[in-house]
Amino acid sequence: MSPRKLEVCLTPALLHLYDIRESIVVVIDIFRATSSICYGIENGAEAIIPVATVKKCESYRNSGYLLAAERDGEVVSGFDFGNSPFAYSKDKVQGETVVLTTTNGTHAINVSRNAKQVVIGSFLNKSALSNWLKSQPNDVLLLCAGWKNLFNLEDTLFAGAVVSHLNNEGYKLDDSAIASEDLYLAGKNDLNEYLKKTSHSERLKNLGIEEDIRFCLNVDITTTIPVLVGDRLVKMMKD
Amino acid sequence: MSPRKLEVCLTPALLHLYDIRESIVVVIDIFRATSSICYGIENGAEAIIPVATVKKCESYRNSGYLLAAERDGEVVSGFDFGNSPFAYSKDKVQGETVVLTTTNGTHAINVSRNAKQVVIGSFLNKSALSNWLKSQPNDVLLLCAGWKNLFNLEDTLFAGAVVSHLNNEGYKLDDSAIASEDLYLAGKNDLNEYLKKTSHSERLKNLGIEEDIRFCLNVDITTTIPVLVGDRLVKMMKD
Repeated sequence: MSPRKLEVCLTPALLHLYDIRESIVVVIDIFRATSSICYGIENGAEAIIPVATVKKCESYRNSGYLLAAERDGEVVSGFDFGNSPFAYSKDKVQGETVVLTTTNGTHAINVSRNAKQVVIGSFLNKSALSNWLKSQPNDVLLLCAGWKNLFNLEDTLFAGAVVSHLNNEGYKLDDSAIASEDLYLAGKNDLNEYLKKTSHSERLKNLGIEEDIRFCLNVDITTTIPVLVGDRLVKMMKD
Repeated sequence: MSPRKLEVCLTPALLHLYDIRESIVVVIDIFRATSSICYGIENGAEAIIPVATVKKCESYRNSGYLLAAERDGEVVSGFDFGNSPFAYSKDKVQGETVVLTTTNGTHAINVSRNAKQVVIGSFLNKSALSNWLKSQPNDVLLLCAGWKNLFNLEDTLFAGAVVSHLNNEGYKLDDSAIASEDLYLAGKNDLNEYLKKTSHSERLKNLGIEEDIRFCLNVDITTTIPVLVGDRLVKMMKD
């Protein structure tokens, strides 16, 4: 049997180069969509429905769902909240269904729908996710949401963290997985400090959401894995 | 005046995300097209004409030009040579014009034609190229040719070497430039050893061209900069 593949797709614009039909795709948008999704599902949200457009999100008005819309780092006017993780605390989301659209993260989820399975990763659920991947027979593609289809460092760093976690498990890595791991090893001692030099961090700082950034770099504070079932992200029920 | 940009486009499949009309684009295909182009121009080739297809290359038959065609790492049957740097030595190319088509490198050159200027980079001319870039007022985009539009490590490593060379010159880096530099810093002490873990290196090894690989990692053994003028790569005449 040939070894399982562990690959990293550095932006959704490269996803067409991969055959994902038999793979588990892990969608990664560290600042902030997938961190918030992990946090929300951990905190008892019944489901999070990722949608592509603000208009689609708006169409759920009066459905009883919470509506969350972010564009270019800010909450879209008229919506309950955006993708700050602090909006996904237990008191806000427990038992609720959230409809969510974001600049990068929900796009990456939507283009992954042909995969065998789509799950959500972030530093918050790093070990739970990695250990589950290890237990599966499938190839794995770590999909970085990036920034408007461009490469970004924080998503790649997290992909590298997963590669690093899985690297003694006999997976076959592609070059981007190798690179991601080496970047993670360069930054892991102080992720927050390392990421300060990135363009995105500067942009987020200008938005006044440094608290969010710090929160999204917490490692292993959750243990659930959000998984896409139909059009909904829900808590994975492990065997 | 805002600082010049120094960006890295990790594969030609992402080039549409950049506005290159006012930028210098440096095309990078370390194994082996741009290394061989640098070596050939240094060795007195009058011009190298990059063409997209084997058929187009074939159309120059009986023109008096040397014909070079490579696909998937091998010389295409019926052609004088492919893209091994050893085919571009002085005794073979001095005073000659070479028509060249390769799997990745010539594709990357062709999609860059809208740039202000297109130049060719490799470890062979690293310092000459970097010093020239520094002397120019333009933004710089380092374009990694990759492997069939996928990310590859060796091209990114060279992009990082250029970023490292230029990093105190006040350029504004994007995330991929930052990542490239960090990868270069991780591998620079022994590029050959570092690159042994890549998928491409394994593929090239299977092709029996380890000598080529070692040669392409020679740093600063040439001083010319190939530049695209019309449809030809020629030696840049510096001021």
